[in-house]
Amino acid sequence: VAEKTPRAVGGNWEAEQLEAKLSRRVHAVAGAYWGAGARQEPPPVPPIMLAGGVPDPASLPIDDLVAVSERVLRREGPEALRYGGPQGFLGLREWLAADAHRREELSLGPEHFTITNGAAGALANLCDTFLDPGDVAIVEAPTYPGAMRTMRSCHAEVLGVPIGDADGLAPEALEKCLEQLRREGRRPKLLYTMANFQNPAGVTMSLERRREVVELCRRHDVLIVEDDAYGDIRFEGEALPSFFALAGGQGAVRIGTFSKTLATGLRLGWVMADQPIVDALVRMRFDMGSSPWPQRVVTEYASSGLLAEHVREVVPIYRRKRDAMLAALDERCNRFARWDVPRGGFFLWLELSEGVDPAILAQAAAQEGVAYVGGRTFFPDGSGARYIRLAYSFVAEAEMAEAVLRLGRAMERASRGPSAQ
Amino acid sequence: VAEKTPRAVGGNWEAEQLEAKLSRRVHAVAGAYWGAGARQEPPPVPPIMLAGGVPDPASLPIDDLVAVSERVLRREGPEALRYGGPQGFLGLREWLAADAHRREELSLGPEHFTITNGAAGALANLCDTFLDPGDVAIVEAPTYPGAMRTMRSCHAEVLGVPIGDADGLAPEALEKCLEQLRREGRRPKLLYTMANFQNPAGVTMSLERRREVVELCRRHDVLIVEDDAYGDIRFEGEALPSFFALAGGQGAVRIGTFSKTLATGLRLGWVMADQPIVDALVRMRFDMGSSPWPQRVVTEYASSGLLAEHVREVVPIYRRKRDAMLAALDERCNRFARWDVPRGGFFLWLELSEGVDPAILAQAAAQEGVAYVGGRTFFPDGSGARYIRLAYSFVAEAEMAEAVLRLGRAMERASRGPSAQ
Repeated sequence: VAEKTPRAVGGNWEAEQLEAKLSRRVHAVAGAYWGAGARQEPPPVPPIMLAGGVPDPASLPIDDLVAVSERVLRREGPEALRYGGPQGFLGLREWLAADAHRREELSLGPEHFTITNGAAGALANLCDTFLDPGDVAIVEAPTYPGAMRTMRSCHAEVLGVPIGDADGLAPEALEKCLEQLRREGRRPKLLYTMANFQNPAGVTMSLERRREVVELCRRHDVLIVEDDAYGDIRFEGEALPSFFALAGGQGAVRIGTFSKTLATGLRLGWVMADQPIVDALVRMRFDMGSSPWPQRVVTEYASSGLLAEHVREVVPIYRRKRDAMLAALDERCNRFARWDVPRGGFFLWLELSEGVDPAILAQAAAQEGVAYVGGRTFFPDGSGARYIRLAYSFVAEAEMAEAVLRLGRAMERASRGPSAQ
Repeated sequence: VAEKTPRAVGGNWEAEQLEAKLSRRVHAVAGAYWGAGARQEPPPVPPIMLAGGVPDPASLPIDDLVAVSERVLRREGPEALRYGGPQGFLGLREWLAADAHRREELSLGPEHFTITNGAAGALANLCDTFLDPGDVAIVEAPTYPGAMRTMRSCHAEVLGVPIGDADGLAPEALEKCLEQLRREGRRPKLLYTMANFQNPAGVTMSLERRREVVELCRRHDVLIVEDDAYGDIRFEGEALPSFFALAGGQGAVRIGTFSKTLATGLRLGWVMADQPIVDALVRMRFDMGSSPWPQRVVTEYASSGLLAEHVREVVPIYRRKRDAMLAALDERCNRFARWDVPRGGFFLWLELSEGVDPAILAQAAAQEGVAYVGGRTFFPDGSGARYIRLAYSFVAEAEMAEAVLRLGRAMERASRGPSAQ
């Protein structure tokens, strides 16, 4: 019968007609940040993945998560499996408050936190809450591509301020940008920054620059949105104060996540903010909150000390992987690119030598079987073709040499000169 | 030192100044749909909860979920704990396609589904994808309050079409509304409808009316958004075709969820739609997708037949609870209200008698210790004060008599006449 088959029986719903029905927000974003995988062409060679910022799979604490999840489900199953509200589980927010005290001696309560669908969900929540069409959002150039996509979906203009050197965002460039906007009568609403082990550039902002950025943003009434996804993956040096702490808890918020310390698939992040901002963020949640089950599992996992222990165990793994990648790059790629040594995080950021053609490199890398992310996606103006980002976090240590060998071969092929393709 | 205390050191970030910085979207929604619980006044008496549409906690399949979760984590832990992409786990979408075939003989594939943060997240995704400021969204009056809040956050105008009788939304009223909008040159983008066991009214739309609604919406180029959260909680009668099936797969989408059949805390729902619409929905996800862990657990739970078995077990529980509530209402409340008998779902919808003062009833019920949802929240124009919604799903069967006894006492106190307070 007619209603049993999904065949169109009229109407104006073919793809082209649909376009005119979609919201302007859809048109503001070019495509999915993460394409519908099933319809992508398979790569010619199964690639070694140096693309995503994903934790080491072999060190995932499966046994502990199985045990903690069982404990939580048996002890508080009905609560873990029931709506938990848009602000998230109170116990997790209490743990986060205690954690903020341990880190920076901040006196906060659960009311200063809201639980989000990962750091990406946190940023989406913040953009929905602060960005009107025509507003300006300032990002570091380069920055996390998902952030720009989210901002643009709110019809905000995304402006990049260059990361000048190994000390991170240059305050002079930020000031110049803010002064220019003021002259134009435009309103920059927020500055999105990753001060620790920046994604993708790997740099860490110095304390002096953090203070200057706080002062500049206060003067120009700009909210500082610090995304600290990678701050706990620290190989060297001491943690520097958050913008939230430096700003005295107002005018700056901190995004955190369990994605990099534990698992991206938990989709659990948070915003630490002054309470009126938390209230506004909660008001802009429309999905009835994140699942209380993983929230309660993570709370138990963190409260019982397992999370801190896990971080102590995995940080040396990432340090070794970083060093293994650096050694392999020195051997295989030093004629084709230059890079700095990050003191933490998941990424190396390579600037290709003049002689390397980025487009040919992309093709050659696919043929050789190694996946990385090209630099253009990280810059608001689409520049950055001469950069590539390599993640050392996910690839097995045993595969690191092979991965970089393949990359080196691809770079060789993409190079002008006697040995070029 | 200064940066260690969260004390404001200047700037314009106090609550009042913050208001001017928030997006217009924040101002379009009155408050959180679900308030920040920690700051609410505790009720005078711990209430028996007849408020939320939440499954029976005693019948949650804790043992099965523990076992399935362990199996999933040990077998596919790295995949379950890694980003799963914005469209959601392929295996779950394949199961949903097979399920759609079992239900309505629809020939669909995984590309016709996107996994969302519950049905609420599905609707938010749809609103972001279709609603521009000034657009009109049509809802049934009464309807699910979260839907209106989400639509309004997109600056859409929400218009209600009355549910005329026990057969659901009246097509004549819908046609009148659509014709009026056409005369005004306004664009109704979507119709949000719950045709099965409507929340809150409990009614089910007849097949004839479904066909008329499809025809009207096709003629007026309006997307039908069917929210079928409660369709599987069926006590009597046969399932009627979905709007998606009736419309031949175009111009209608179906929202589903595991919240009511399994657990609200999973935050797992989906949209079944024509592929270009799925693509647009995926484009408007900014949170890197729902957690793959619960998705894979639910896939395994459903694929192994446990979900169907669970639904077969719980439906009779809800039928008994409905009957127990009806019997108690007949005994305690029949002087104060009238109601129809729903053939499924979680709710009874009571119209208060003329003599019952709804405001006094709300106070008296809080004092007696019984929680329900007042009718005004379900109507786009804030009418409906004479209705209340009772959920029989969550309360223990053993407490049902006491719950309704308390409600009856509260109604007595809220009544004009000799026995009134």
